[in-house]
Order: sequence, then C-alpha cells, then structure tokens
Amino acid sequence: MSSDQETLAWLRLGLIAELTPTGLRKLLAALTTPEGVCAADRATLARVVPDHVAAAIARGPDPERLDAAQRWLEDPANQVVTLADNAYPRLLLEIPDPPPLLYVKGNPALLDHASLAVVGSRNATQQGRSNAEAFSRELSDGGFTIISGLALGIDAAAHAGGLVGLSSSIAVVGTGLDIVYPARNRDLAHRLAEEGALVSEFALGTPALASNFPRRNRLISGLASGCLVVEAALKSGSLITARYALEQGREVFAVPGSIHSSLSKGCHLLIKQGAKLVESSQDILEELGAAVHDRSTTIASADEIALDNPLLAALGFDPIDLDTLCQRSGLTPDTASAMLLTLELEGVVSRLPGGKFQRVR
Amino acid sequence: MSSDQETLAWLRLGLIAELTPTGLRKLLAALTTPEGVCAADRATLARVVPDHVAAAIARGPDPERLDAAQRWLEDPANQVVTLADNAYPRLLLEIPDPPPLLYVKGNPALLDHASLAVVGSRNATQQGRSNAEAFSRELSDGGFTIISGLALGIDAAAHAGGLVGLSSSIAVVGTGLDIVYPARNRDLAHRLAEEGALVSEFALGTPALASNFPRRNRLISGLASGCLVVEAALKSGSLITARYALEQGREVFAVPGSIHSSLSKGCHLLIKQGAKLVESSQDILEELGAAVHDRSTTIASADEIALDNPLLAALGFDPIDLDTLCQRSGLTPDTASAMLLTLELEGVVSRLPGGKFQRVR
Repeated sequence: MSSDQETLAWLRLGLIAELTPTGLRKLLAALTTPEGVCAADRATLARVVPDHVAAAIARGPDPERLDAAQRWLEDPANQVVTLADNAYPRLLLEIPDPPPLLYVKGNPALLDHASLAVVGSRNATQQGRSNAEAFSRELSDGGFTIISGLALGIDAAAHAGGLVGLSSSIAVVGTGLDIVYPARNRDLAHRLAEEGALVSEFALGTPALASNFPRRNRLISGLASGCLVVEAALKSGSLITARYALEQGREVFAVPGSIHSSLSKGCHLLIKQGAKLVESSQDILEELGAAVHDRSTTIASADEIALDNPLLAALGFDPIDLDTLCQRSGLTPDTASAMLLTLELEGVVSRLPGGKFQRVR
Repeated sequence: MSSDQETLAWLRLGLIAELTPTGLRKLLAALTTPEGVCAADRATLARVVPDHVAAAIARGPDPERLDAAQRWLEDPANQVVTLADNAYPRLLLEIPDPPPLLYVKGNPALLDHASLAVVGSRNATQQGRSNAEAFSRELSDGGFTIISGLALGIDAAAHAGGLVGLSSSIAVVGTGLDIVYPARNRDLAHRLAEEGALVSEFALGTPALASNFPRRNRLISGLASGCLVVEAALKSGSLITARYALEQGREVFAVPGSIHSSLSKGCHLLIKQGAKLVESSQDILEELGAAVHDRSTTIASADEIALDNPLLAALGFDPIDLDTLCQRSGLTPDTASAMLLTLELEGVVSRLPGGKFQRVR
C-alpha cells in the first residue's frame, strides 16, 4: 500500500505519545507527507503544534519500540492502514476525529464491509450474553460484520456470534495490537485474527490504560452503520459508545429489559433519548433497509380478508358511518363496533374523524 | 342536576339498544331535549335516524327495565350524568364519540379530577401486578386518579394502588352498573363504590358481552390525560385502549420488559410506535409537568464540580481544543481526553464540531 519509507514515517509518528490525531492531521496539511513531518525541524513543527509536541517529534520515538513495530509488521497477518490509503475505512473518514493510523491484524478488507457495533456490559447476565450472541449471529448472517471491543461479557458474546455468522467480526481494542487484553479473551482474539480482524489506533506496546478505552469507543461506533446496546448500566462505557454513535449520525438500537434490572437502565435511557427499541435482529435489518423477509407472504390479501368477514362487503373502500353500515349490513351497532375494532387492530380498517370508518386494504 | 322528567327521558333513551351515541346526538341536535326526542313520533325521528331505530324509540324501552333503572337511581350512591350536565367530564367532551349518558356509582366529582389510565393484561405476571400497583399508588399520591377497567390482573392491581394513594380510582366497566363483572372483583367494586367511583355508558341490566369491552376502552383513555400500559400481549384489549388514547391525543406510556416475554410485546410495540418508555412513576409525573422532585438539589453546582476537577480550571466556559487544553493544564492528551469524556457523561462538558470542547455548567 505504501512505500517502506512512508510506512516507517507513519510508524515513527504513531509512537509519539504527545501527538494527537488532530495535531498530526494539521502537520500533514502543512507538510504534505509523513516523511515531510519526520524530516522537519522543531522550529518548523512548532509553527503548527505546541512546542512540547514539536520537541517530541524532533526527538523521535524510542528506537526499541520502533524496532519492535517494524518486526511486528513483518508478520503477513499484520498491517498499518493510514488516512492516505485507499483501504482506510470510508465510514471512519466521516467522524470528527479519525485516527491517522490504524494497526490491523487479520483481514483488512473487513474494515470496509457493512457492519454493526454490538456492545454492552462486562458484567452481563447469562440472558444478556445469550441475546448478544443470537443478535450478532443473525446480523452477521444478514450481511453485517459485528464490531465490538473484545471485553468480557456482551462484547465477547457479540464477537462469538459474529464469527459464527457469514460476515465475521472485528475487535477494536484499546491497547497495542501486540497485547491481548483481557487475557481471558486470548482464544477469542486468536480466532478474530484468523477469521476476522483486530484493529487499534494505539501504538504497539501500549498497555491497557483505563483512559484509552472510552476514546477507543468512538472507533467502534465510527466503523459501523449502527450501534446495538444489549445490556448496559447507567454511566457505562457502552453509553459512551452509543453517544459517539449519535454524534456520528449512526442509528442506535437498544434491547429493553426489566425496569428492576440495573443492566437495563442504560438501554432504557437510550430509548428515552431516541434510540430504537429492538426485540429481534429482524427489527434492525428492517430498519437498515436490508430486510430479507418478504412481508407480502404474511399479510393476507384484501380478497382473502373479505371472504372471512361479512362486514367488509358492506364497508367498501369509502368512508362510512356506523349507522349506515348497520343499515347496509343488518348488523347491530354493538356487533358492528366490535368487528370494526378487530379490523382496525388488524390494520384493515381506519377510524376517521367524525365517527366514520374506511377500509384501507 | 336535571329535572325528574329530563332524567326519565335520558333513562328511556339509554335503554334503546338500537340507538347509537351518534344517533342520539343527532336527535338531540334536531329535537333539542331528551324529552323532545321521547315525545316525537316515528316519522319525525326517521328524518334523523334510520327507520328501524326510529321505530325502536317510538316503541319505547322494556317497562320492567325502565322501572329497575328508576329504582336504581333512588340509591343516593347512584347517579346519571349526561352531556347536558355541568358534571359531565370535560376531557370526555373532546373524544369523537362521547356517550350521551353515563351511569355513575360513587363519587361523581372524581370524574373531572386529573387522572391517568393504567391498563394491562388479565393474565399478568406477579411482577407486572406488583408494578401496576406501585405505579398506581405513586401516581395517585402524585395527584392522579387511576382509571382502569375492573378486569383481573393489571386492572385490579391498578385500582388497588389508586385506592391506597391520595387520589383514589375509577372503574369504567363494560356492563350495566347493577352487575359486577368479573364476580371475583366484587370486593374491589364495593371499595370503588365507597371510596372512588364506577362508571358505565351501558344501560342497567346490560350483561357482560364481549363486544362491549373494546368499545368501553375508549372511555378509559378518554377520561384520562394519559394511558400507562404495564403488561400487554400483542392484539390485546390494552392495545385497543392505547390506540384510542393516541387518537384522542393523550400521552401513552409503556413499561418495557424482557424481549422473551409475550406480555411485554404489546408494550414494546407501543414504544416502537412512539409511546414513552417509563421505568418509574416519576417518569410519568415529570412528563405530565407535575414533578414534585426538585432537580436543583441533586445537581452539584458549577463551583462544587470545579473544586473536584483540575481540568475545569483550564477549561473555562469558552470553546477550546484538546492541544490548547493540554498546554494550559499540563495534562497529557490521554489523561485530558479521559477526563473530558467523564465530564461529558456528567453533562458538564459538551463536545463541539471541529474537536473543541466547552464547559456548559
């Protein structure tokens, strides 16, 4: 994708802890290429970024970490994908703060596949994990790669379901890709590397720092067309991901639960704020316009309904009041009212202002 | 409220099964008073309503039922309230099909009290009944009379909760008021008659007919400012009530539950269609503008927050980007990002387009 020189320059810049994505984007705008940024002197850099950042870039990264990063790249499973690459995920370009550099282990083509984020609590219930796995498997079969954060609980179940389905799964992690966190998900991480992908914006060697995980969440939502929250407490990382999703203009979906479960309170808050309540993967597939379900086979045709219901012959497709309908059909007002209500509930009849009724299909 | 002659005329007309509320309103518009309608001949009546209805009115009601209705009215607990009375419930005048005549047992003043409908399944779960009772007790304490349908399950729990609270409860029933249906709720009906009220639009002696219950539901929603559905299956009577509430411009509230419970599917459907998900009576009281909870005591003042958080001193109330904030505060980008996210989640800091942040309180 990139020349060795360019890749090396990206790796160097990725290892400068003081350099924010925004700062790097500003430098690239001013100095055109990552090689240009690496070659610039401190004074030149300091015209674009604060002086302590310029100093850190001019000083360059720890040589041992740079060596390790170059060795890591020698493994054909590993790659870096940069803002300058065609392989950079299209949806991520739309977020306010796209990382200039992504470390990828596994299949980088998955990064631009239609995808859905599925997230939730580390301390999920058994039912919550089972729901996450089932939704993710069905969504993966429905054409969506499942993106999550490799945490215990809902995340792990979401990855497992995504991997079983047809469209695999991607973990966006909060450490360097040479570290697996949490260690209990080591087997899952290996499966993702072989059948899916792992992605990080953090330099190789970056340990699990609490502060990096919320920041990582913007990529979980940013890579996906929508975000499903399965179980989440109030003030949880999952709600941060959902908030990012909303800011990024992604659909947010939430699974409801008991009003007495603290792990449903986050989902309920999201629904109150406008997230879509979902009961099945079908709800999501329909919302995203990918429904494979053919509704026409489940709705009886107008003729079939008419055969079953004597009222409909008298009703016709024009507005009519109850008295006239009773005259025409010979039914009593009570019977006709009850039948109209049933038909209303079935979506066959619509109640109009002024006490009139109209058949709508 | 009315003269004896007028009351007798209303009672007579209420006993004509063929006469719909719409038909009676048309006749009153044409002939001014119920006495005028009763005195009119068949030909006059037939200019306004279909001939078979005119014939039934001219024939008059079964004398035995009329006698029974007059005897029922002799009990001081019993009354009829008509469209012509000041005591007729104001909210009911707004619905498309207000009943011309209401039979009332108990305290008629409750009919014009602020009220909420609480409805749900007859086959409710223990948890659902417990929720209905708790919501209703708290809403009754919060100033809302609880309206429901005297059915087993959620309805009975709602009445019980409403009666315990400060604002009592009203049952709108689907039979004549001289009949208690279901018989298992006889004790509850007696408590409602003594401490609350029972209301029906159906003539005395009207037995429990399946067709009358859905029609009755429009009065449950129509008498109330909003409708709470606690547990409901798809295609249930509770959904008919909720649909009436929407048509009547009332707020609809629904309690969520497990996606695997058939008794939550009706509530979830309503939420998908725009009903408000509620987790507590407070949610409803706040929505209806009757919140007694003083939020100002639970939100820390700006000064208290600033003392706890070094970032806020550097942040100020103007938009600022992360690099500048790090320069000012001496914090690393990672630490500052994590702190900003926490503050965002607490509603203290807002993220602006272009990667800037602003303190909002």
